[in-house]
Amino acid sequence: MTNDGLMRCAANGAALTPVDFLGWTAATYPNITAIIHGDLRWTYAEMHAQVRQLAAQLTARGIKAGDTVAAILPNTPPMLLLHYAVPMLGAVLNALNTRLDAATIAFQLRHGEAKLLIVDSDFSVLAGAALAQLDTPPTVIDVLDPLAQAPGPRLSATAFDAWLAEGDASFSAPAIADEWAPMALNYTSGTTGDPKGVVYHHRGAYLNAINHAIVWSMPQHPVYLWTLPMFHCNGWCFPWTVTLHAGTHVCLRRVEAAAVYRAIADYGVTHLCGAPIVMTMLIHAKPEERRPLPHTVELMTAAAPPPAAVIQAMETQGFSITHVYGLTEVYGPVVACAWKKEWDALPVEERARLKARQGVRYQLQAGLMVADPETLEPVPADGKTLGEVFLRGNITMLGYLKNPAATEKAFAGGWFHTGDLAVLDPDGYIALKDRSKDIIISGGENISTIEVESVLYQHPAVLEAAVVARPDAKWGETPCAFIALKDGANATDAEIIAHCRAHLASFKVPKTIIFGALPKTSTGKVQKFLLRDQAKTL
Amino acid sequence: MTNDGLMRCAANGAALTPVDFLGWTAATYPNITAIIHGDLRWTYAEMHAQVRQLAAQLTARGIKAGDTVAAILPNTPPMLLLHYAVPMLGAVLNALNTRLDAATIAFQLRHGEAKLLIVDSDFSVLAGAALAQLDTPPTVIDVLDPLAQAPGPRLSATAFDAWLAEGDASFSAPAIADEWAPMALNYTSGTTGDPKGVVYHHRGAYLNAINHAIVWSMPQHPVYLWTLPMFHCNGWCFPWTVTLHAGTHVCLRRVEAAAVYRAIADYGVTHLCGAPIVMTMLIHAKPEERRPLPHTVELMTAAAPPPAAVIQAMETQGFSITHVYGLTEVYGPVVACAWKKEWDALPVEERARLKARQGVRYQLQAGLMVADPETLEPVPADGKTLGEVFLRGNITMLGYLKNPAATEKAFAGGWFHTGDLAVLDPDGYIALKDRSKDIIISGGENISTIEVESVLYQHPAVLEAAVVARPDAKWGETPCAFIALKDGANATDAEIIAHCRAHLASFKVPKTIIFGALPKTSTGKVQKFLLRDQAKTL
Repeated sequence: MTNDGLMRCAANGAALTPVDFLGWTAATYPNITAIIHGDLRWTYAEMHAQVRQLAAQLTARGIKAGDTVAAILPNTPPMLLLHYAVPMLGAVLNALNTRLDAATIAFQLRHGEAKLLIVDSDFSVLAGAALAQLDTPPTVIDVLDPLAQAPGPRLSATAFDAWLAEGDASFSAPAIADEWAPMALNYTSGTTGDPKGVVYHHRGAYLNAINHAIVWSMPQHPVYLWTLPMFHCNGWCFPWTVTLHAGTHVCLRRVEAAAVYRAIADYGVTHLCGAPIVMTMLIHAKPEERRPLPHTVELMTAAAPPPAAVIQAMETQGFSITHVYGLTEVYGPVVACAWKKEWDALPVEERARLKARQGVRYQLQAGLMVADPETLEPVPADGKTLGEVFLRGNITMLGYLKNPAATEKAFAGGWFHTGDLAVLDPDGYIALKDRSKDIIISGGENISTIEVESVLYQHPAVLEAAVVARPDAKWGETPCAFIALKDGANATDAEIIAHCRAHLASFKVPKTIIFGALPKTSTGKVQKFLLRDQAKTL
Repeated sequence: MTNDGLMRCAANGAALTPVDFLGWTAATYPNITAIIHGDLRWTYAEMHAQVRQLAAQLTARGIKAGDTVAAILPNTPPMLLLHYAVPMLGAVLNALNTRLDAATIAFQLRHGEAKLLIVDSDFSVLAGAALAQLDTPPTVIDVLDPLAQAPGPRLSATAFDAWLAEGDASFSAPAIADEWAPMALNYTSGTTGDPKGVVYHHRGAYLNAINHAIVWSMPQHPVYLWTLPMFHCNGWCFPWTVTLHAGTHVCLRRVEAAAVYRAIADYGVTHLCGAPIVMTMLIHAKPEERRPLPHTVELMTAAAPPPAAVIQAMETQGFSITHVYGLTEVYGPVVACAWKKEWDALPVEERARLKARQGVRYQLQAGLMVADPETLEPVPADGKTLGEVFLRGNITMLGYLKNPAATEKAFAGGWFHTGDLAVLDPDGYIALKDRSKDIIISGGENISTIEVESVLYQHPAVLEAAVVARPDAKWGETPCAFIALKDGANATDAEIIAHCRAHLASFKVPKTIIFGALPKTSTGKVQKFLLRDQAKTL
């Protein structure tokens, strides 16, 4: 076909950016509640005005396209506003993990070249300690949330709310011109070496935000509870998904069972996300913390496959669980265990086994495969052959900031190397078996720690379990299990080992059992590197 | 932010194309019914295989990227297959309106440079007459659907089904490299001059397909009835929307009330689209043609605002009406009357008045405004000031093929000029008042024919009404109403005029009333140019 008569111009093209979702919703549904936080209620008209005020004030502080704005904030209204105001300016939002230590935060502020830092008063001691380590610290703005629990000292003369109120609510930024431009910076919690700075662009955030709604069949006007930290992959892009669907953001400073049940009951929460720790917390809530659910509540979970007992307990309470998988490098989840109606009729153990799989790619991500880490040759769909998980498409980072070697390694061969090991089932669903570094090699046999853990979870006394490699003179490595028992439950090494023998090949049975609480990251992932260190010293 | 460490490569970018939706659904839900047509049932695995076979056969016939493949087909499986196989090759699908005359079809085949033409046997006489007018006719393939009603003579030695069956089901085409590349060609039914060839790209079709689902809160696994012709803006992009949501396409050769009710009851149809004529047909169906609806059925309608009586009658039957607005140049609908929960409680007349408005832009289209046609200055949101409707964004054509002057005119000032006139209500919703060319100017006053028509529709005897300008020596123009009465109903000129006087400013009251059936286009739009010609001769 000839191109005669065809052209590209302002009329028929625009950069894809999730920033635009807010303008649409504020114009169409100005009176719908956008944000609930304690007694605070903002409509979309108000939220939009505040975002413009914030963008105006950021501009007044010299923030411009390409600049980094950092935040140390819980899931509060200022965090939501920053998710629009910063990218609206073409600037880059660096939401920092509030549970990191000062040295790591200092590293990230320095490495990301943050020009401005917004700090909640509950984290001002931490932020202050980080800032003290910097030669050229960013300008600081204090968020003085009345709901803060243990506010630390002021770090600056500027209080966020008053500063925001002075902003021009009629401010408008030029439209984003390049959908591939950076809009967010999220550091991985890398277990070795310095954290890596993962850079997101507008196009990827736009598509991932949309795809969540497809995966969840999300209707208009969801009520979304912010149990997932927004500093985690920008809350998996849900700041944009919820707004696109003219939904209500219910903020939550701390994830506690009573607060979650209360929010669900009082505000009619329809959707929430969280690591398995959130489900464990809800299941084990005390009677006085519970409230009946007003309707089925959709819960999206990642980071570890939900065991059958957890799924059953959650479903009995009225939650519907969607299991997804992703990494910081791919904007959070981009793989989902797409459910099939015919599975509804199966026994819960079978449903749990199917749902524990990570599943298939998101529709708007281009590619997912399990393949040989070196040759990139896909493994057969036999449910057995272990390979590395590879992802490809628009919902993939631009790279690791200032780390071209790591970027090139991660993208070698035109695929993003996740470092996770999986098998491909005959129905095309992937099932994670381990992180590359988590796999245990015992007497030349690969042992999937996830497989061993899932057997441990079936033991009635086990609350949580994590398995790592313990160095062994004879076998190279042997499985070492760390186990937290349920309140009031008892079990001995021998009982646990006997249980494993009944369900596992003998070489997979843990040789060592350690009882006690498991160390976790801020996002509820078990910190296996600590356990691995511990196992080395046993 | 520095670009150091950031890169674009195959790992983190892919062209947006709706062709990809099929691969996902076929892999994830291979056993779900993709297509129903008479007794035919194809799963997604089968549909995917057939699409690859078709792409292989098209390739064998020399079709390559940039080539045009034309089709004269009703809403049948071959039409659905073409919507994937042609763009998969980077080729351009030209779905021709089956109700056009041979000369117009010949023009479009010549102008679009079709290399191949797929013809249903019900239209082979028409196609043959068109082909006879061409110096270098395209290769023809005959679709011999056993459900054809009045099959004409064979045009070629190739029968589609047998030819398709010989194709290689393992065929794979290289991934689409350029999301801005042409993928479809749709001719406008221009009332004057030659039809204009509107060119769509992959990116626009992808985004519009997704946006329909957001507008409709479409869950996974819809059952979609093909009442809307796929030759109309590629069925508003629903060939891709339905597949993205792993839904079932229910084909329909002819839109008849009994067939529609039967399909809804038998297949559990959840969604359908159509011009108002479809609703009129369903409302006035005979008792023996009706079947009870198994659930609320979502119906998306465009082309004319649904009158209150129509909405009420449809809702009583169990249909939920979504009113949208668009044009061929913007891939079908890109404006929707986004509904608000608080409107549910209003009386039906008030709901109809609100719903009759065209509404707000689709979320994934960048811009909508009502503005002065010359200065592009937006009109005030006063619900009164008439302006032209302008659209902007990715869901806008690449231009008019081989007509750069028309393209540049359509895109002047960086907006697509729709030629439709509207007002902007205080709540930001647009309400169409007329096509520029339809407006009546009487004694210097503008008269919206839509306004007059909506009053006519309120008269109990009126089935359909269309108002056009009649030349007048004194006033310049006066309104002339063409009216089709309901079966068995009676009304006189004087009664109609008295009804109008009671509801309209006197200068807007039709001076002339003509009773009789209204001429319509293939898509159910009243052919006002014919009425205008008739009014000139009165």
